[in-house]
Amino acid sequence: MSDERADLAAGPVCPVPISDYPTVQLAHGGGGKLTQQLIERLFLPSFTNPLLAALHDGAVLPVGGARLAFTTDSFVVHPLFFPGGDIGSLAVHGTVNDLAMCGARPLALSCGLILEEGLAMETLSRVVASMRDAAAEAGVPIATGDTKVVDRGKGDGLYVNTSGIGVVPDGIEIHPRRAAPGDVVLLSGRIAEHGIAILSVREGLEFESPILSDSAPLAGLVGTLLDRLGARVHVLRDPTRGGVATTLHEIATQSGAGIRLEETRLPVAPAVRGACEILGLDPLYVANEGKALAIVAREAADEALALWRAHPLGRDATAIGEVVADHPGRVTLRSSIGGLRLVDLLAGEQLPRIC
Amino acid sequence: MSDERADLAAGPVCPVPISDYPTVQLAHGGGGKLTQQLIERLFLPSFTNPLLAALHDGAVLPVGGARLAFTTDSFVVHPLFFPGGDIGSLAVHGTVNDLAMCGARPLALSCGLILEEGLAMETLSRVVASMRDAAAEAGVPIATGDTKVVDRGKGDGLYVNTSGIGVVPDGIEIHPRRAAPGDVVLLSGRIAEHGIAILSVREGLEFESPILSDSAPLAGLVGTLLDRLGARVHVLRDPTRGGVATTLHEIATQSGAGIRLEETRLPVAPAVRGACEILGLDPLYVANEGKALAIVAREAADEALALWRAHPLGRDATAIGEVVADHPGRVTLRSSIGGLRLVDLLAGEQLPRIC
Repeated sequence: MSDERADLAAGPVCPVPISDYPTVQLAHGGGGKLTQQLIERLFLPSFTNPLLAALHDGAVLPVGGARLAFTTDSFVVHPLFFPGGDIGSLAVHGTVNDLAMCGARPLALSCGLILEEGLAMETLSRVVASMRDAAAEAGVPIATGDTKVVDRGKGDGLYVNTSGIGVVPDGIEIHPRRAAPGDVVLLSGRIAEHGIAILSVREGLEFESPILSDSAPLAGLVGTLLDRLGARVHVLRDPTRGGVATTLHEIATQSGAGIRLEETRLPVAPAVRGACEILGLDPLYVANEGKALAIVAREAADEALALWRAHPLGRDATAIGEVVADHPGRVTLRSSIGGLRLVDLLAGEQLPRIC
Repeated sequence: MSDERADLAAGPVCPVPISDYPTVQLAHGGGGKLTQQLIERLFLPSFTNPLLAALHDGAVLPVGGARLAFTTDSFVVHPLFFPGGDIGSLAVHGTVNDLAMCGARPLALSCGLILEEGLAMETLSRVVASMRDAAAEAGVPIATGDTKVVDRGKGDGLYVNTSGIGVVPDGIEIHPRRAAPGDVVLLSGRIAEHGIAILSVREGLEFESPILSDSAPLAGLVGTLLDRLGARVHVLRDPTRGGVATTLHEIATQSGAGIRLEETRLPVAPAVRGACEILGLDPLYVANEGKALAIVAREAADEALALWRAHPLGRDATAIGEVVADHPGRVTLRSSIGGLRLVDLLAGEQLPRIC
């Protein structure tokens, strides 16, 4: 812990402000710069411990000779139901995926509901049925739960927290630090579908065919890779809030390695690309809920791609870039016309409440 | 699974209504009859699995040769700061205590925050500092976390979910089903302090000395009992929402045993008793956040009481009743004048948003 952090940890009155803003902004929940600031200036110095400091999608700790992954995620998506999913299935997929990105096989989920007084029972029933179906599809039991009710006007229908536990098999070592020059960056499919699906509903946009969220459980897709390639899989992450750009930026920062992407390799469905243009969004920053990024040893890349393409959730998998020795800690993108640009974190909030 | 449950599990359109009400009421979160109804008619049939069916404060499942306890709790208490605690310390204590009531030694907590846009950073900072201090006192790391932000008017400052994992030591068997006639019911101290502390602030009541919440981490208090008495400790529960009455009612229902309480043995501080009379509340139904109930084998009761009374959090521990063979599945109270009355679940909501 640096001296600055020690100061911050000393108490609630901090010498360094925990944010550039005196109050919480929507962007503090957006996964970009302000979220990072909260984590670095408030949560890390306060809850300082080696598990949290790993800064992964979940903590991994030893239990009875096994390595247990433990993760949590709250879901506040608006609207509750959207093309391709709803808050219930999303909450199950999100936490199953966080476990999968630790290299873990999911064991059990919890379900914590915060209901707003006046919510229709039929809505609650639909969401619970959706959680049930998603958990069954992912093969994970919802093992424990809790329900709270808040007064009318103090919520937005319902919020869901799912936490999860899983076991990391022997021989698997997943961590951002393992990204090394020469490694290949794989993406399991087309990007930006979840964010655009949510935003289309909110903005009342109509397309020839509706854009569906990609929300899906990724433990199986990731499992095929780990079963066959073991420790040659170095890093796993699902590019949710902040999209592929933000996720790779975090990996570059944590590993100190550079990452170079090829714009022409980024798989984006034409309808999604069109919607992004209308909305003024860069698909590289738009959330996914059913895609995985894997950074694998170069000699394993072809086999990894073949494994993913043979899986229903990885048919459009592609190698989108590589880990490089130059520009350490940064992500660059070689554009379709050959220019190289820096992929930075967004300062503001592109899409509030998309998960 | 009964036929009725199978029907309910078939889909969101249920032949039996999941509630007597078409919309969510505050009482659905109160821990009483309506909460039970949601659990029995919606959650259990939907998420049917043996872990959830155990209906304990958490699930216990085998991991790598150990027994892992896993629990979740969301906190929506209003106001955020109250005499004796705040939502941060409460969230840590609540989940540490749920683990302790499974007989587990807490290993790690998660922290999921739902912040309302516009929340003062200073408030967030105070709550996080309180979580940090409470976790340090309980000796449990906050190992993983998540932060979401909702629009102004869609929350109430902040809500916290804490989930937790812990390990149940060998030789410990805690379960409501283990309550058996002859067992003694122990309570670790004075009741109703948390609920009255919250309500006093909300109602603007002033007392000669303020009534403080009893919010405290109980893993140590429970650990002393388990270390010395092992499997002679049969049941553990913390009487939170719905108080001692509701908690014992659940134990009686699950074990099929009767429980008889002695009213004169129930420890209630005079100021709390006075406040309950003013507010028209029965202290037996008012929430505690730092008290444990233990049901122990009769021959271990004296030693258990002595162990608790030697602990700072158990000085006022007392035997409040016993498990009996008559009136199976029910809780009765012998009043100070000798009459016997049935202690039933409350239908409505005595105290909304006290945790």
